Amino acid sequence: MVMPDYDETLLQQLRDLLGDGGLRIEHDDVMPDVILRPQTTEEVSGILRLCSAAAQPLVPLGGKTGLANGHVQTGVEFGLSLERMNAIEEIDTSNRTLTAQAGCILQVAVEAAAEQGLLLPLDFGARGSATLGGIAATNAGGNRVIRYGMARDVILGLEVVLADGTVVTNLNKMLKNNTGYDIKQWFIGAEGTLGVITRLVLRLRPNPRSENTALLAVDSFDALIGLLHWMDERSAGTLSGFEVMWPEFYEYITREGSLHKLPLPHGSAFYVLVETLGSEPETDAERFETVLGEAMEEGLIVDAVLAHSQSERNALWEIRDDVLEFFKLGPIIPFDISVTLDSMQAFVDDIRTGMAAVPESICIVFGHLGDSNLHLILGSKNPEAFDYEGLSTLLYETVQRHRGSVSAEHGIGLSKREQLHRSRSAQELQLMRAMKSLLDPKNILNPNKIFAADTLQRG
Amino acid sequence: MVMPDYDETLLQQLRDLLGDGGLRIEHDDVMPDVILRPQTTEEVSGILRLCSAAAQPLVPLGGKTGLANGHVQTGVEFGLSLERMNAIEEIDTSNRTLTAQAGCILQVAVEAAAEQGLLLPLDFGARGSATLGGIAATNAGGNRVIRYGMARDVILGLEVVLADGTVVTNLNKMLKNNTGYDIKQWFIGAEGTLGVITRLVLRLRPNPRSENTALLAVDSFDALIGLLHWMDERSAGTLSGFEVMWPEFYEYITREGSLHKLPLPHGSAFYVLVETLGSEPETDAERFETVLGEAMEEGLIVDAVLAHSQSERNALWEIRDDVLEFFKLGPIIPFDISVTLDSMQAFVDDIRTGMAAVPESICIVFGHLGDSNLHLILGSKNPEAFDYEGLSTLLYETVQRHRGSVSAEHGIGLSKREQLHRSRSAQELQLMRAMKSLLDPKNILNPNKIFAADTLQRG
Repeated sequence: MVMPDYDETLLQQLRDLLGDGGLRIEHDDVMPDVILRPQTTEEVSGILRLCSAAAQPLVPLGGKTGLANGHVQTGVEFGLSLERMNAIEEIDTSNRTLTAQAGCILQVAVEAAAEQGLLLPLDFGARGSATLGGIAATNAGGNRVIRYGMARDVILGLEVVLADGTVVTNLNKMLKNNTGYDIKQWFIGAEGTLGVITRLVLRLRPNPRSENTALLAVDSFDALIGLLHWMDERSAGTLSGFEVMWPEFYEYITREGSLHKLPLPHGSAFYVLVETLGSEPETDAERFETVLGEAMEEGLIVDAVLAHSQSERNALWEIRDDVLEFFKLGPIIPFDISVTLDSMQAFVDDIRTGMAAVPESICIVFGHLGDSNLHLILGSKNPEAFDYEGLSTLLYETVQRHRGSVSAEHGIGLSKREQLHRSRSAQELQLMRAMKSLLDPKNILNPNKIFAADTLQRG
Repeated sequence: MVMPDYDETLLQQLRDLLGDGGLRIEHDDVMPDVILRPQTTEEVSGILRLCSAAAQPLVPLGGKTGLANGHVQTGVEFGLSLERMNAIEEIDTSNRTLTAQAGCILQVAVEAAAEQGLLLPLDFGARGSATLGGIAATNAGGNRVIRYGMARDVILGLEVVLADGTVVTNLNKMLKNNTGYDIKQWFIGAEGTLGVITRLVLRLRPNPRSENTALLAVDSFDALIGLLHWMDERSAGTLSGFEVMWPEFYEYITREGSLHKLPLPHGSAFYVLVETLGSEPETDAERFETVLGEAMEEGLIVDAVLAHSQSERNALWEIRDDVLEFFKLGPIIPFDISVTLDSMQAFVDDIRTGMAAVPESICIVFGHLGDSNLHLILGSKNPEAFDYEGLSTLLYETVQRHRGSVSAEHGIGLSKREQLHRSRSAQELQLMRAMKSLLDPKNILNPNKIFAADTLQRG
């Protein structure tokens, strides 16, 4: 275990600022060794003032379960963990907002809102570890984006500490507020490279009073798009899920001997999990059934199974959510990308063609179709034939050729940094770098994420 | 008529660039005399390169019907009109997007989308003059924000020309796209001070298949908030209008001798126009009636009238939209502000108390309650007693005291520039100015809007 020579003067200043339990040093191969654990926005400001003066870089840390390595160490960064700033400060039932510190865990916030009969609509697998600050910093998406939008759409106000320690507080609760530049937008999705988010105001919604779920079989990609449009039009404002599984996904997860019951037979071109969240428990189910029945008459779906209870709903979602199962197949890489619907079929065909050259290939496709968002799992059952670079290149070159996005909802971090140019132009990248240099002239905030340090002009 | 000495060399370069009809000089007391009329993004880029080199300021011009004087001349600016860049380039029915040049009029775009069976949900009074570029630059709101959001929520992609002529194109069509900083957010709502928007991609929605409208009488502010929450919860995802009229509004517009039929008697504390846009023409009306009937049983409303035809719907909306009628009362000022719901009643009480000191005062309040957005019309029937400064000070001081927003949806422009500090902190204003100086170091883009020129550091 070798630790770098840290600036002892700075460490002592930080200890003095943060007190007992505010600074922890422990060697870690991936994460920073020095973890700063402020308890207030003022302490975050103090940390940034000191670190800015000493040009000491920092990695802001939330739940550390991001999928783009935005939270790892790239040099001698200190970790700035918001774990002790996890208070829910207010649930305002009149304005329907939740105000919390950035270290608050998503699930805790969701449950606190639910106790007031309100919905915090952000939801994804890492709900038990992801923090609200991390969610804002990565503009997290998830399962219900088609209905409620990304994190950006749920955030009404932010408090941010800039690289020099300046605290910029805008805990706005108003839906309409056109008073100059909407500063919070600059920090949402910036992955902690422009400022440290310390507090947030989130918009809450009424709790849905009914939930309807079905698994559908579809026999062509055109029918799939037709079905998406149909469901969107016929479920006005209530469509909250449109999760598509290509057959390799569905057939493997529900294979003989799996723990899942088989809700629909194998052999269809696509399987779709649809969900609506409505307001009339007594009539919504009937309405949902009618809309699906007419879709069948229109030839948009070939088979359907409706959930009639919460346990049946859960059973359908468990098929869609059982993604870890694919890790048993062999070495794989999970990808998160977007392509427009008109390119999607050709995109998947091109990936399949590319994968045909891989011995014992694994090629699993699924995604949030209404958001243009596909997840792909590529690999080989034969570890000898697994080629990380080759698979990544195939995937990202194909995304670029179809003018897609190399990151739909996971962000860029360290993992996708070298792919960013495939989705953003030289002019866009230049503008991003100018912004980074403006707000973080010493490059102390999450350095090397999104941009390599040596591609930035130093201030 | 006196025109300033323009830089003849620059004018000739611009004439050469833009050709016949591309440059018009006509004296105007309010607007710039020199109007540049590019036809392509490349011409906009050429204009900015030339004007940047000559430090010639510009006012980007859309429909010129903004309500914050964002489009007027403050010195020797040239006007940069996008009126000849008004093409709808594509309506993509698969991805449900509309791509257009910035000079396209909102209503033209709405009608083109409707021809494809799709809804462009932005809607407000200036629909026949406002351009898509102006709408993006001001983050326009309007009538259906509660359902579909502001302009920001409808914009998927933008093309922007920077002050130095650099073209930054991101005509994104994907709902999920987390590839570095979301640059378009910087320009939306920046009122043309950071760049010139030349093209846009807007998100389209399915056309609603049913529309239900009612006018309701409510007897307390608490019941009003209760009704908003009730309608939001019981109309899952379909509530598209919640327009509140304080009694002075309703009673004047429907006074004896007015052109409007009286749908509900005078004497209630509040009148609310509610609207849902649904998907089931046959059953939505019944559902709407049930939800309102139960609201009445709950004591949330005291009287109601439902529209049973398009002409009845129009008649109800015409009451809400007949705002110009108040100009007949005497000299008035229309204001556009936001306050949170928990402060709203005290805010209105404070304004009324202040107005009690004005002889023959006019004090009309109405607004989009679900968006925290109130419009106020203040004045005096006695022109001698009309005091523009006094009324503005009363209004904006009261907004500040209740921690509201001095501009909900109209922006800052020139009119509200001196009020901006009431809603944004010194740290926020400093950060905005830093952004302005980064992107427009010579302050040639809509100078003096949002910030006075002398408050910016020149680059």
